[in-house]
Amino acid sequence: MENGQTNQTNPPTAVKADKPKKEKESKGNNNQVKIPKGTRDWVGADIQIRDKIFKVAGDIFSRHGGTQLDTPVFELKHILAGKYGEDSKLIYDLADQGGESCALRYDLTVPFARWLGMTSTQQIKRYHIAKVYRRDQPAVARGRMREFYQCDFDIAGEYDAMIPDAEILRIMVEVFEGVGLGKDVSIKLNHRKILDGMFAVCGVPEDKTRSISSAVDKLDKLPWEEVKKEMLEKGLESDVADKIGVYTQHSGSLGEIIAYIKSSAEMCANEQVQQGLSDMDLLLSYLEAFECADKVTFDLALARGLDYYTGLIYEAVIELPGEKSTETRIGSIAAGGRYDNLVGMYGRRKIPCIGVSFGVDRIFTILKQRHEDQKIRARSVDVYIMAFGGKNGLLIDRMKIADALWKAGISAEFSAKVKPKLPQQFKAAETAGVPLAVILGEDELAAGKVRVKTLGLPDDHPEKEGRLVKKEDMVAEVNRLLASESQPQPPAVPTLTDAVGQIKLDGKA
Amino acid sequence: MENGQTNQTNPPTAVKADKPKKEKESKGNNNQVKIPKGTRDWVGADIQIRDKIFKVAGDIFSRHGGTQLDTPVFELKHILAGKYGEDSKLIYDLADQGGESCALRYDLTVPFARWLGMTSTQQIKRYHIAKVYRRDQPAVARGRMREFYQCDFDIAGEYDAMIPDAEILRIMVEVFEGVGLGKDVSIKLNHRKILDGMFAVCGVPEDKTRSISSAVDKLDKLPWEEVKKEMLEKGLESDVADKIGVYTQHSGSLGEIIAYIKSSAEMCANEQVQQGLSDMDLLLSYLEAFECADKVTFDLALARGLDYYTGLIYEAVIELPGEKSTETRIGSIAAGGRYDNLVGMYGRRKIPCIGVSFGVDRIFTILKQRHEDQKIRARSVDVYIMAFGGKNGLLIDRMKIADALWKAGISAEFSAKVKPKLPQQFKAAETAGVPLAVILGEDELAAGKVRVKTLGLPDDHPEKEGRLVKKEDMVAEVNRLLASESQPQPPAVPTLTDAVGQIKLDGKA
Repeated sequence: MENGQTNQTNPPTAVKADKPKKEKESKGNNNQVKIPKGTRDWVGADIQIRDKIFKVAGDIFSRHGGTQLDTPVFELKHILAGKYGEDSKLIYDLADQGGESCALRYDLTVPFARWLGMTSTQQIKRYHIAKVYRRDQPAVARGRMREFYQCDFDIAGEYDAMIPDAEILRIMVEVFEGVGLGKDVSIKLNHRKILDGMFAVCGVPEDKTRSISSAVDKLDKLPWEEVKKEMLEKGLESDVADKIGVYTQHSGSLGEIIAYIKSSAEMCANEQVQQGLSDMDLLLSYLEAFECADKVTFDLALARGLDYYTGLIYEAVIELPGEKSTETRIGSIAAGGRYDNLVGMYGRRKIPCIGVSFGVDRIFTILKQRHEDQKIRARSVDVYIMAFGGKNGLLIDRMKIADALWKAGISAEFSAKVKPKLPQQFKAAETAGVPLAVILGEDELAAGKVRVKTLGLPDDHPEKEGRLVKKEDMVAEVNRLLASESQPQPPAVPTLTDAVGQIKLDGKA
Repeated sequence: MENGQTNQTNPPTAVKADKPKKEKESKGNNNQVKIPKGTRDWVGADIQIRDKIFKVAGDIFSRHGGTQLDTPVFELKHILAGKYGEDSKLIYDLADQGGESCALRYDLTVPFARWLGMTSTQQIKRYHIAKVYRRDQPAVARGRMREFYQCDFDIAGEYDAMIPDAEILRIMVEVFEGVGLGKDVSIKLNHRKILDGMFAVCGVPEDKTRSISSAVDKLDKLPWEEVKKEMLEKGLESDVADKIGVYTQHSGSLGEIIAYIKSSAEMCANEQVQQGLSDMDLLLSYLEAFECADKVTFDLALARGLDYYTGLIYEAVIELPGEKSTETRIGSIAAGGRYDNLVGMYGRRKIPCIGVSFGVDRIFTILKQRHEDQKIRARSVDVYIMAFGGKNGLLIDRMKIADALWKAGISAEFSAKVKPKLPQQFKAAETAGVPLAVILGEDELAAGKVRVKTLGLPDDHPEKEGRLVKKEDMVAEVNRLLASESQPQPPAVPTLTDAVGQIKLDGKA
């Protein structure tokens, strides 16, 4: 499934503008340490947000019986050829080195279809979360990259009509609820047969169906006048275009638009429309059983770019009040549809499929913006082990304590210095957002004891000084504090006056 | 870090043999549906075993304060150039399309060093689990691929001597214990300074140190006579080679080999050896604190191929009794060392680093073999919802039940047919290894009830028929059965006589 990445107003030909700029860039900069154009490194809080999306989606896919498929990052070139229409020029080729022509995958759908063609699999729900590659003109600020993530769920196999289709929509609803965007996302539906039937009814010649469909696809970004202009340029009569304009302005609940189409005698007379309507009737009853019929909109202007769709098509868009926020400009964050003929291109067998692709990078951008508002702490480690005084900074003792914590499955760190200063150790714990400290002193250790304390407590807190516990009770005490830490609490005062013996530190993180 | 993938007796020049075969292949097969040479699809039980390795390693890395870094799959070509010596010919280039020369990453170490060179990071523990690419002659049966996984943990930054080194070794021990190979893996250590000092002591000219080191590296695969022959060919005197032969036959516990070196006056007189010994003394005390000194062997014959190591080097090998098993032929399954100068090649700052790379595909091969012995069930879904009789196969009711289970976070499936036959539904549940069924009948539904039962119980089991429960109690009953199912139980009899009303099925899965 495409994820809407290419579904933008910038024409793919923009890539031509690439060359001169690149040649200029390459002059004298050959040894510069940088990253390839349109790619990025993921690290820190970003990767935590991203992994949350992966985990939410993966759990939901498994809950629906999905299994993972992980294919190579490149495919034989001829496998990708002829599948993407105009966008084929965005395919990233490998150098021919040893007789095999390969190219980086453009999406995760074609590799899935290739795999189905190679195996004897008849039915599968598969998911795949991985990077795909488009040699497009990158626009990093707007989130258009050459390497980006897709997250696909597809159902392949012969089933009764619209049952898998309803489940895919239900999964979309679950994923958006799971990542916390349930209220902001709306899912638009259409049916290729209704769309194509509508074109026929309006008087579009059959051989122009796909090109007119691609013009309609731009209605969410361009005013009607411009879309009509494109239709006329593509050879349509003005009254035919106007008729399309009337139909495509209709969107509403599934029930409403089904009723609207049924009220049109000329639409009902078209056989393709009839087939599509029958599907949409079934879909409505199934979505009601899945309690998500109210989450979708039937939009006669939805067309989707790719040629291979044969039935239901859909697109999730994020709709938020703030007009100029990143979120409103972000467009579709998931898209897909039914493609019953693609697998047949790779094998003797025709396997009907339906799937959805989530635009992870776009969902990430929205979630990141929200996380930043909340200033979430990127906590990696639970315990920082510190020492004050002692021979050789009590390094061996700090190591033994770390050993005991790691063995108990608790994440722990200590300064990798023989004699670290106490303020440095507190600073390191604070910078890393570590909630607990185990503090070693020579006298305490001689008595078989260590101090366990919560960091960041206000001065008047009863547990400000922590507790001196026997070494063998340390793990239990740490677990007790971690358990209470995970409970909802009054907001911790972000203070650094946590030191033993009133040590004060700079607050710079 | 390399993962030993290239550390094999087959010379990298074997890739030359690639071309004629390829040309032959490409004749007439241009449209064959296949996968690129030396790559594979991951699916099913394989991906579950693989993900277990990822999860175990990731959890341990986090427990030690590690954070993820995810870099692009390709880098600018000049970033990779000159880092891999002879192996540079195995780098996979992208076609030059638009002025930027890129190549697929050869390992995860150079991208990490490039990232350190681009940022202001001074200290980090980073991990990265991802695919890397080598345009080598693939040998799929022996697990040598062109696309394969690496799993790296590295500690970058200025610290006191040998503290991060000890933690890396401790992490290696934890990961192997975590995946269940703790007893089978042995970790061999050496120190580049001791190795280089030893070469000097034996009379190796300084400019031959690396090439003689690479000969010594083959001692675990070739007999001494052949390694000596290579040394003579590289211009060494016979008595110098013999002297190396005496030293390199020594391996034993850290304490033993430290004592052995200290007993040699000529070794002790060498300054590099002295520095190395001081490191090894510290390391021994730190590994004792971490309770894993007994897990390592000091092996004077360990050399490691890559040029960039500057201090401690290590390699984990799997050692099992059965001589001809896959496991014994698999060689090193993790390797790494200290590389203090690599990052300096990408930036103004020199950042000392130490790291380890786990050979995921090799660990996977061993675990898979063991899993196959145990015939572990690849269970994906917990509940299969079935119906017998009823109008339209009770499809809408099955959907409502699925809806309720999904909402409760329980994985569930049902047949995507309007009127599935009951035996088909049982067969589907069995094939997928689903443990529980929710069974709908028209009369029971009219009374607001469904049957919840455990599949695969023997005929005389008291719960063989399951329980008829109210619809609103279904989730609780399913959770009760899942909880008891996860308890240790007497082995379930693999029977298929689970049907309501004594339906019997073929046992073919």
